[in-house]
Amino acid sequence: KINPDRLWDSLMDMAKIGPGIAGGNNRQTLTDADAEGRRLFQSWCEDAGLTMGVDKMGTMFMTRPGTDPDALPVYVGSHLDTQPTGGKYDGVLGVLAGLELVRTLNDLSIKTKHPIVVTNWANEEGARFAPAMLASGVFAGVHSLDYAYGRKDPEGKTYGDELKRIGWVGEEEVGARKMHAYYELHIEQGPILEAEGKQIGVVTHCQGLWWLEFTLTGREAHTGSTPMNLRVNAGLAMARILEMVQSVAMDHQPGAVGGVGQVFFSPNSRNVLPGQVVFTVDIRTPDLAKLTAMRARIEAEAATICEALGVGCSVEAVGHFDPVTFDPKLVSSVRSAAERLGYSHMNIISGAGHDACWAAKVAPATMIMCPCVGGLSHNEAEEISKEWAGAGCDVLLHAVLETAEV
Amino acid sequence: KINPDRLWDSLMDMAKIGPGIAGGNNRQTLTDADAEGRRLFQSWCEDAGLTMGVDKMGTMFMTRPGTDPDALPVYVGSHLDTQPTGGKYDGVLGVLAGLELVRTLNDLSIKTKHPIVVTNWANEEGARFAPAMLASGVFAGVHSLDYAYGRKDPEGKTYGDELKRIGWVGEEEVGARKMHAYYELHIEQGPILEAEGKQIGVVTHCQGLWWLEFTLTGREAHTGSTPMNLRVNAGLAMARILEMVQSVAMDHQPGAVGGVGQVFFSPNSRNVLPGQVVFTVDIRTPDLAKLTAMRARIEAEAATICEALGVGCSVEAVGHFDPVTFDPKLVSSVRSAAERLGYSHMNIISGAGHDACWAAKVAPATMIMCPCVGGLSHNEAEEISKEWAGAGCDVLLHAVLETAEV
Ligand SMILES: NC(=O)NCCC(=O)O
Ligand SMILES: NC(=O)NCCC(=O)O
Repeated sequence: KINPDRLWDSLMDMAKIGPGIAGGNNRQTLTDADAEGRRLFQSWCEDAGLTMGVDKMGTMFMTRPGTDPDALPVYVGSHLDTQPTGGKYDGVLGVLAGLELVRTLNDLSIKTKHPIVVTNWANEEGARFAPAMLASGVFAGVHSLDYAYGRKDPEGKTYGDELKRIGWVGEEEVGARKMHAYYELHIEQGPILEAEGKQIGVVTHCQGLWWLEFTLTGREAHTGSTPMNLRVNAGLAMARILEMVQSVAMDHQPGAVGGVGQVFFSPNSRNVLPGQVVFTVDIRTPDLAKLTAMRARIEAEAATICEALGVGCSVEAVGHFDPVTFDPKLVSSVRSAAERLGYSHMNIISGAGHDACWAAKVAPATMIMCPCVGGLSHNEAEEISKEWAGAGCDVLLHAVLETAEV
Repeated sequence: KINPDRLWDSLMDMAKIGPGIAGGNNRQTLTDADAEGRRLFQSWCEDAGLTMGVDKMGTMFMTRPGTDPDALPVYVGSHLDTQPTGGKYDGVLGVLAGLELVRTLNDLSIKTKHPIVVTNWANEEGARFAPAMLASGVFAGVHSLDYAYGRKDPEGKTYGDELKRIGWVGEEEVGARKMHAYYELHIEQGPILEAEGKQIGVVTHCQGLWWLEFTLTGREAHTGSTPMNLRVNAGLAMARILEMVQSVAMDHQPGAVGGVGQVFFSPNSRNVLPGQVVFTVDIRTPDLAKLTAMRARIEAEAATICEALGVGCSVEAVGHFDPVTFDPKLVSSVRSAAERLGYSHMNIISGAGHDACWAAKVAPATMIMCPCVGGLSHNEAEEISKEWAGAGCDVLLHAVLETAEV
């Protein structure tokens, strides 16, 4: 078993870097806080005898050698970047559980045939640079390096420039590494495990996603002196599309979600009807046919809504992944590890996207989930217990040991 | 008659200060550009022999003496501040037409019994510091100086600090001046005069206004892993309220408007349901009973919408004025000046708020309007012709001469 206190202490130490405003974290990708978090993780890994490789996307690979020089490594990991008002565990748990696993193997002088690589994927959240899981996406060949380097934050700074600025451009070609398997421990970020009273989620699938970015063009005009019938009201069109996205999601229940996280009015002045409204739509479901149908309906109905108001409408798809089925053999090793350790468990579908989803394109991959309080995530109040973290890390250790072979 | 070329040249010179991004202006209140515009106006006025007084709100009063030492001044003016993406004429025309009027009287060596004071009211737009017409509101005793000094821009900077920073805190007590009359020339900012082919709008009334600021509190949560039925979706509530405001305005036709110019999502991240949405509602009508009914219905229905979604809702009224009836005697002098000069004219109700609305509380006041292309304002593409500006300024000159007595 791993040492839950040590794991917890590391979680709390990492949470000191890039503190939020309400007890959580703001350690967004490629900020100074991200760089500081990386250096702390690096020093812990080096203390544990791991050697570092960094690829051109800035992903960190910390290697514990295996006994067989020909055996491919077993990868474990997640991400240290956070939302602007993020929690202390989303991503961080998976990275530091990988470190705790290595520390435990060191304590017990356990050697594995396959090397073990603890990974900190760059820009998982996609909050600063859309899309999410950007570095693992390049790793899996879904995006080109040029595409990724050109992604812009809301201020117009590019991924490439910011990665250089914080000094974390690595030497390795992205995706050159071959994986024997990939495991990721993550908090559920949803309410199911806690409601069902289970300690471990055996993750069988991940739902698919589309991120759509709408740009609506109205006519900037005075809110007081412009008669109602002469308005070209992009804000009203946005409101109607937001309500429609809600309806589309409700019409695809159960097992579908849709919502809007980001809205930018321009010029955003109280007495000016907006000339432009930019906003993002996030739709997800584990069912590919549903996902495709939802996107098509949203785009068609948005066009109708805008046409009726004379508002210009353009849509860009800025993020996408199909629903993922995780590797059955790895899924079984997670389930049997939970059994052996006596932890209650259930199958679960990941509601959020994870680096494991892209890793699954190039290697056998799966995930382990632990509950989080009230299902709350992407919120500074995100909370888990030390026991939940410890149980998840124990299962990770045992599943990895089965795959990495002692 | 005034000199339309000289008026136009001054308009174009002022427009060079605080240029916008699309041919208009961004010379928001108490910015460096505002200070620069003030200095240019001051130097023009001093060249025309006017003497400056500045009050504690930063309003500039440029006086041309009269022949009777006991006669109260006739005030003319408007504002030099603009929207973030504002036009070159909104406000500026009324101030520079006052200057042109003085230049014309100087050219013709006409003396008036009453002094004439050309006024540049501070913070008319209310875009940076709500509410609009802030300095004239303090002048009229509607707001206290402390209230005005404490108003904050979106970055949290206060009016008082910014006024000090740009060096325009005057000595005069606000509202100490007594006015014989107040005239304001302004572009219509609406489509009526152009559509009716009239050169002059004789402004009889101004519609009343409420500015409401809604703060909706939802629960920040992951857009992917939070099931639809567990969402506390402040963004959805905003969309429903926006649609409802539109309905309320449509139900009060003719002669009522309602719209939303400003929306702030927080944290405004693509994969986070907003924990907070702040947005502003602007409703107006010339009918006080309607205005009161619209506000009441909007607040009641917003509460119902939010309750159904479990979203917290608080509303602050950040701006208000009742419908205004302008002084009948001054209105007649505007109408008869237009008649005498042979300009086509019609009665009109101001759709926008103006400093004249507050001046009307403490003195006989009225306005003159000239058309603007397509009724477009609060848009960098705002446009008028030199002829329209000249006609408006001619009428201003003649009406003022009647009131100020030669
Ligand atoms: N796990 C997680 O929150 N990832 C960010 C990408 C997503 O929105 O699902
Ligand atoms: N004239 C003008 O645009 N004033 C700003 C206040 C308002 O929104 O009416």
